[in-house]
Amino acid sequence: MKRIELIGVEGLPEVKPGDDLGELISAHSTLQPGDVLVVAQKVVSKSEGRVVRLEDVIAGDDALRIAAHLIATPDPRMVQVVLDESVRVLRSERVLITETRQGYVCANAGVDHSNTGAGVLTLLPTDPDASARRLWDRLRELTGVVVGVIVSDTFGRPWRLGIVNVALGVAGLPAAIDLRGTPDDAGQPLHATVLAVADDIAASAGLVMGKTARTPAVIVRGLELKGSGTGQDLIRPSAEDLFR
Amino acid sequence: MKRIELIGVEGLPEVKPGDDLGELISAHSTLQPGDVLVVAQKVVSKSEGRVVRLEDVIAGDDALRIAAHLIATPDPRMVQVVLDESVRVLRSERVLITETRQGYVCANAGVDHSNTGAGVLTLLPTDPDASARRLWDRLRELTGVVVGVIVSDTFGRPWRLGIVNVALGVAGLPAAIDLRGTPDDAGQPLHATVLAVADDIAASAGLVMGKTARTPAVIVRGLELKGSGTGQDLIRPSAEDLFR
Repeated sequence: MKRIELIGVEGLPEVKPGDDLGELISAHSTLQPGDVLVVAQKVVSKSEGRVVRLEDVIAGDDALRIAAHLIATPDPRMVQVVLDESVRVLRSERVLITETRQGYVCANAGVDHSNTGAGVLTLLPTDPDASARRLWDRLRELTGVVVGVIVSDTFGRPWRLGIVNVALGVAGLPAAIDLRGTPDDAGQPLHATVLAVADDIAASAGLVMGKTARTPAVIVRGLELKGSGTGQDLIRPSAEDLFR
Repeated sequence: MKRIELIGVEGLPEVKPGDDLGELISAHSTLQPGDVLVVAQKVVSKSEGRVVRLEDVIAGDDALRIAAHLIATPDPRMVQVVLDESVRVLRSERVLITETRQGYVCANAGVDHSNTGAGVLTLLPTDPDASARRLWDRLRELTGVVVGVIVSDTFGRPWRLGIVNVALGVAGLPAAIDLRGTPDDAGQPLHATVLAVADDIAASAGLVMGKTARTPAVIVRGLELKGSGTGQDLIRPSAEDLFR
């Protein structure tokens, strides 16, 4: 009987720029070979210094105009930070949805002010796959154990309500499993079936992370995955985008 | 330390129309109070007789026209079945994306021919929340144990590649957890934070179900959820839809 365990990593101190996240996590967990460690983007961003103080931001005309059209009229300086993180605005009425420099389509370019302290914003890591690889490498160095690493964040969806955890950066495990052409249980080939396994893993970790609880990382044990990929494997190219 | 377990329910025979799914599942699992049972839509649909034989379908002009524009030019009779299950076509170039009678926006209206036997299609349950409630009730009757029930299926996403498991029908647990207004760890109110917890649960179960394996149900243990909701709670109303 297949069995998977989700184990919260708790007790980490508040993460600050320059902190060695691998050391903090390995000190508060016991990793086993084949585990996948899902780490919340927020602590990765904080450790990498991807934070901005609102007092250091000056809102331009676009930011001022857009802020006035959004629900709850956010601080225009926050809108400015979102625009700085984006290559394209998809929607700026009521909610601000952009394509980020990393290629994600999400609300507010992943810029967040919850759990950051007053007047402080976190940005997404510049290259979440590189963040995941660094952590993968550091954990192996510190523990001698090879685990998969996912850097996750919560995204909304255009047709469904609520946010779910998705995989931004991936190292040491496949992000997608392509089952096209493999036979189903009745012997017919499966069509159009690419499983976004790293997103399913990120979502499962979201059950343990919650949103306010201080559980910035989750160990997923028992997956038995082979191969490796990157978070970029899960980004639909703009050319194939159905609605961009 | 928070810990959640995902346990596959295996060994069920091939499910046929009229089968008592609650009896089959309870005979192959040991449920505990507070568990959430995630059941794949396919076995729910089969047990409810939501299957169609292609030989009984006649493709109309719309179905013939649309089929010619889709990748891999599917059987026009399958397209006809998709149209019959839909209230609106959102896209019919390369892929067929519709709004289903139940309100979901997804590819092929959830109509599927994998793991069904040649020439047979499964349709989504007419009312997945009712399906979940019936199974919830039947499991309580048979086992004396109160569990949450999710009827899940795999959906694609417009901006991300690959499919993930989502919650269609929900009974005995909350589908969404609204954290708006609750304070974050720094005491600031959390904004725009509704967790689609039933979707995260469905996705976690997807890790155990796979796609070809005969694991039509998964027990999720250790969630500690309170309250209850429905799968409809996770459907964004068309009026709020950003891209419809």
